[in-house]
Amino acid sequence: MSDTKATNITWHDQHISKDARRALNGHGSAVLWFTGLSGAGKSSVANAVAAKLHARGALSYVLDGDNIRHGLNSNLGFSQSDRTENIRRIGEVSKLMVDAGVISLTAFISPYRADRDRVREMLAPGEFFEVYVHASLATCEARDPKGLYKKARAGEIKGFTGIDDPYEEPNAPEITLDSDGKDIEALADEVVAHLEQAGLLPAK
Amino acid sequence: MSDTKATNITWHDQHISKDARRALNGHGSAVLWFTGLSGAGKSSVANAVAAKLHARGALSYVLDGDNIRHGLNSNLGFSQSDRTENIRRIGEVSKLMVDAGVISLTAFISPYRADRDRVREMLAPGEFFEVYVHASLATCEARDPKGLYKKARAGEIKGFTGIDDPYEEPNAPEITLDSDGKDIEALADEVVAHLEQAGLLPAK
Repeated sequence: MSDTKATNITWHDQHISKDARRALNGHGSAVLWFTGLSGAGKSSVANAVAAKLHARGALSYVLDGDNIRHGLNSNLGFSQSDRTENIRRIGEVSKLMVDAGVISLTAFISPYRADRDRVREMLAPGEFFEVYVHASLATCEARDPKGLYKKARAGEIKGFTGIDDPYEEPNAPEITLDSDGKDIEALADEVVAHLEQAGLLPAK
Repeated sequence: MSDTKATNITWHDQHISKDARRALNGHGSAVLWFTGLSGAGKSSVANAVAAKLHARGALSYVLDGDNIRHGLNSNLGFSQSDRTENIRRIGEVSKLMVDAGVISLTAFISPYRADRDRVREMLAPGEFFEVYVHASLATCEARDPKGLYKKARAGEIKGFTGIDDPYEEPNAPEITLDSDGKDIEALADEVVAHLEQAGLLPAK
């Protein structure tokens, strides 16, 4: 304990703030939480929004099953408590992304209102946009991009949202998208326009 | 199932790649994994590096106890398995940050070699920099910024790294910092110089 250098004076942390990172990036940061049935188009619209943001020079990142279920949440199953923990962790990572100055887009069914509301509560006002991607069950089942509805109808998957597990619609989503009636580009434009109006993006 | 619009042709995801995000940011992305005893200066040096990166226009983010233990890992304790899970989750979040184009700095004791090596394996070659912040136990104990060594010596904390739990030194860290002999600014400059040499940052 004798050779400690007298560096204590400089031994203080200098913290770069969230606002400083936003200023560096030239735009605000927030979570765009896409929710809706399987096949409603959450991931497609989220990725289309990300492409539009990128084209405008804004840094965004899409969290979805591909990069979460095989990584951070690889040790979670599909029990009720694991589903809740799944959404909690995605919320916490989104919060870190927002703190880093990144526009975070999440694309998960996230069928339970309480789970989504808990994520909303993690974030500051104006940092959470619930994006309800609405399509009728009939549309989603007709699309069935992963063949999951077919398996659920055949009883090969249990507890599938919309078939034998509920989807709880958002009560007051910031953005509602009609995925039955519009194409992906149009829906993505709606989201980007909303972010502009909210002051998250500089006008074009 | 009758009213599905013929939008299937555009129903493909366009994915912005990690390289595209790096190009947007104007620098590479990687994890700087600071490891070392409590009091060695991991968090202070990591934050000083972040400040230098920010001043150069590079986007970085520090993960530390403050933003991880109360958030993502709030449901973990200090058992052996929880410590391993703690480091695993931090590694996975760092990987997501790197994918987002952010330079991720982590400041955790992370005393076990196997835990750190598992994080290294999650990442691509050149994306993981193990930064060993070395200070003698005597120095760390003299600094004792949080009063933890005092508590550990008094037996009020059990399993404290360096006292009654081992610290496994890195075998081949990318960067070793001598925190006994240099001040924070000098150590941070060493790290930044290393990132320049590795091609992660454009030359000043």
